[in-house]
Amino acid sequence: MTVRDTAASRYAIKNLPRFVTELRQVVIFPSISSQPGHAADVLRCARWLASHLKKIGFRQVRVFPTKGHPVVYAQALDSSSLPTVVVYGHYDVQPVDPLREWTSPPFVAVVRDGKIYGRGASDDKGQLFLHLKAFESCFATRRRLPVNVKCIFEGEEEIGSTNLPAFLRQHARSLKADAAVVSDTRMLSINQPALIRSLRGGAGFEITVRGPKHDLHSGTFGGAVHNPIQALCEILARMHNPDGSIAIPGFYDQVRELSRIRHEELEPFVPSDREILHDAETEVPWGEAGFSLYERTTLRPALTINGISGGYQGPLIKAVIPSSATAKLSFRLAADQNPKHVEWLLERFINQVKPPTVQVELKTFSLTPPAAIDLEHPAMRAAALAYQDGFGVSPVYLHSGGTIPVVNTLQSILGIPTVLMGFALSSDNMHAPNEKFELRNFRRGIHTCISFLHHMRSVARTTRVAAGAQNRPAVPEGEREL
Amino acid sequence: MTVRDTAASRYAIKNLPRFVTELRQVVIFPSISSQPGHAADVLRCARWLASHLKKIGFRQVRVFPTKGHPVVYAQALDSSSLPTVVVYGHYDVQPVDPLREWTSPPFVAVVRDGKIYGRGASDDKGQLFLHLKAFESCFATRRRLPVNVKCIFEGEEEIGSTNLPAFLRQHARSLKADAAVVSDTRMLSINQPALIRSLRGGAGFEITVRGPKHDLHSGTFGGAVHNPIQALCEILARMHNPDGSIAIPGFYDQVRELSRIRHEELEPFVPSDREILHDAETEVPWGEAGFSLYERTTLRPALTINGISGGYQGPLIKAVIPSSATAKLSFRLAADQNPKHVEWLLERFINQVKPPTVQVELKTFSLTPPAAIDLEHPAMRAAALAYQDGFGVSPVYLHSGGTIPVVNTLQSILGIPTVLMGFALSSDNMHAPNEKFELRNFRRGIHTCISFLHHMRSVARTTRVAAGAQNRPAVPEGEREL
Repeated sequence: MTVRDTAASRYAIKNLPRFVTELRQVVIFPSISSQPGHAADVLRCARWLASHLKKIGFRQVRVFPTKGHPVVYAQALDSSSLPTVVVYGHYDVQPVDPLREWTSPPFVAVVRDGKIYGRGASDDKGQLFLHLKAFESCFATRRRLPVNVKCIFEGEEEIGSTNLPAFLRQHARSLKADAAVVSDTRMLSINQPALIRSLRGGAGFEITVRGPKHDLHSGTFGGAVHNPIQALCEILARMHNPDGSIAIPGFYDQVRELSRIRHEELEPFVPSDREILHDAETEVPWGEAGFSLYERTTLRPALTINGISGGYQGPLIKAVIPSSATAKLSFRLAADQNPKHVEWLLERFINQVKPPTVQVELKTFSLTPPAAIDLEHPAMRAAALAYQDGFGVSPVYLHSGGTIPVVNTLQSILGIPTVLMGFALSSDNMHAPNEKFELRNFRRGIHTCISFLHHMRSVARTTRVAAGAQNRPAVPEGEREL
Repeated sequence: MTVRDTAASRYAIKNLPRFVTELRQVVIFPSISSQPGHAADVLRCARWLASHLKKIGFRQVRVFPTKGHPVVYAQALDSSSLPTVVVYGHYDVQPVDPLREWTSPPFVAVVRDGKIYGRGASDDKGQLFLHLKAFESCFATRRRLPVNVKCIFEGEEEIGSTNLPAFLRQHARSLKADAAVVSDTRMLSINQPALIRSLRGGAGFEITVRGPKHDLHSGTFGGAVHNPIQALCEILARMHNPDGSIAIPGFYDQVRELSRIRHEELEPFVPSDREILHDAETEVPWGEAGFSLYERTTLRPALTINGISGGYQGPLIKAVIPSSATAKLSFRLAADQNPKHVEWLLERFINQVKPPTVQVELKTFSLTPPAAIDLEHPAMRAAALAYQDGFGVSPVYLHSGGTIPVVNTLQSILGIPTVLMGFALSSDNMHAPNEKFELRNFRRGIHTCISFLHHMRSVARTTRVAAGAQNRPAVPEGEREL
């Protein structure tokens, strides 16, 4: 079954150069959600998106303030007999450091060799924006969308979506839908799209070790006062076994045995060790013995120290015993692991290993359970057909090593499954310097999204998935202005 | 034997308020030698000192450029029959971070409660400047100094005195002297001066661990790529044994057995564990089992991680596997340890423990052998008598945990011993926030230094120590201008 919307696709092809110019406009906003100094940029980006949503045809658009960064919301509801799709994306981006490693400035959005370079180009502005261009193509050619659409564009994804659950809870009745689609994941390769079947969970922490009240002279006191950096290193060094596994007692108790997962799956299209190392631009594998790199990065948990800091970090050296040292660390959690339990295990571990000569504080940033997606859901089938239209091949089904908390949130609060229909590549340098997005995938992504809307309409007709949708405007008339 | 120069001392007492105002002028220069952005401030401070030396009576003054920061040189030579004393000090200071912990700004030089607060107030500007005020008092009352004096004021002490040896070697003939005096050490307590009988050596390094070419997304690659922070922590954690001793194989082989040192000494005036902890403002001792805290901090070696840095250090968290991580570490070396050998041991250790999954680089910043001072040298006796005059008590003889490379340099290049006649206190917060200097010690230090010059003259007459001194100006006439 192929459902092509020739008019909309033709419109997209014709307007592609302008679409790319507009994409550059979105990428140029330094909407770094984790850095308070960029709060105004995050807001400007939100307002730009809202204004753009109005321009392309959404009549109900609003920037919802939250306790943190705003949610941009837009809806186009035509009939309660049609299914309703939530389209989620995030317009906030990661920090840019180390800045010196960027070939072109992260917020200039340079286009070269068929790629757009910039922080957020792939994660997630490029992938969010191609949905908008699919909507525009439909609006421009048919004046309406094939299904009811509710756009939720968040500004806090990169900092754990802190305020999204409250927003969803507050508006749960108005946000009823049949499924959500999120484009924030990678394809297997440039010509092989992929649908995600599972996500790792996440748990992010900060450990601070405190020693002397003030920094001390290491000539005067070296040898008599425990150094917080040393204590921190000793604690962190005990978190892994020499074989690459995590040494925190009890950590693997809840992890689903891989033999069960392996047995259930026949999908042969998974990246090889060589491909994963190539994507990482390294030749040296590491990690838990007995598992492939694909398994280590998707089906097995991992612990990463994301940052460490303490004492003097300037040029040369300073003879100091610092008063404190800090590390940021994050777990990726495998199927069946409960992040709350992992937090408890980590606390217990630290209490067991911390020396009596220092103080240790643990701060929790985020706790996200792992997620699995039902391959048989009609929206998953619609996405598979849409990829076929947009890329000419069927998608493969992959486990993802990443964590997308919104998948859990949408399931638990709105009760809807999420289709992870990504257009990024492993080589896109998400979270790293020189992030980019392939304009080829931008184009094919727009066609795929146009097709997805039509397939959702058809599939829904067959499977009566639309039962939960409703036509009542989610945004009361009086609150429509931004 | 007491030699009081009543006229000079009276002059010092009368002019003390002005002396303090002038001391504030020196402390106000942010002459941080390790930070290139402050190079101009270091130079300005050097020029101010040179101009001040001229003002107080030195007719031969010069700012010598080096490959780094300049050396300020001044001399007053009256007769080849008099002994010659090198007065060494340093006008460069440590960095000020963490700045937020300072009660008053580090370069404002606030005077409160009889103390002057500021970076360098104690280390070493206050202690350097009191010599100048002793000289001024002698010049002003007798038009000449009791002995020949050669001042060497360095701008690179806090960064390992990199260019001082070349300066000393180049001018070795002109710098001939009988002894050097350095005021850059601590007293036992506010009313108990101390002469230093030994110094620990030092060896400063930077370790950098490199992993992937670029920072990687920890969701995508967490579990498959070795994290440089983790590898660095694992290497650093292996450097100490659980009992607080250093775990680098062979490290203690050259360390002189403490039983021998203990046996040789009868000095009961050493700080207690309680006093050392009080000075460190902590209640929790740490370190090598079987030794007192005084022994751990002076006669036993120590290893301190001075700083560590890697990955994301901003607010919240960033899901990244960083491409590298760095630590700065410094050893304090005990009697008989050779810093070159320690460097070799560290290199060997790192090669043994580094995992094959990362690259490790070691950079050496400084290597300084430990030093011992002959208690029977006439200059040491002169200093003891001077303290008696300035403080009303005899000094105690202490081992110091610090490293003062110039002591070795003066011995090896000029062949002269150094008297470490300090006026600082353990509570002066050297190298830490809120560094201060007691104005009481500034005053008593001036009197002590006046007295020291006279005792050197008398002691030398008795012991004919002055043989090496000469009257030829070290600075050719034509080069005198700054």
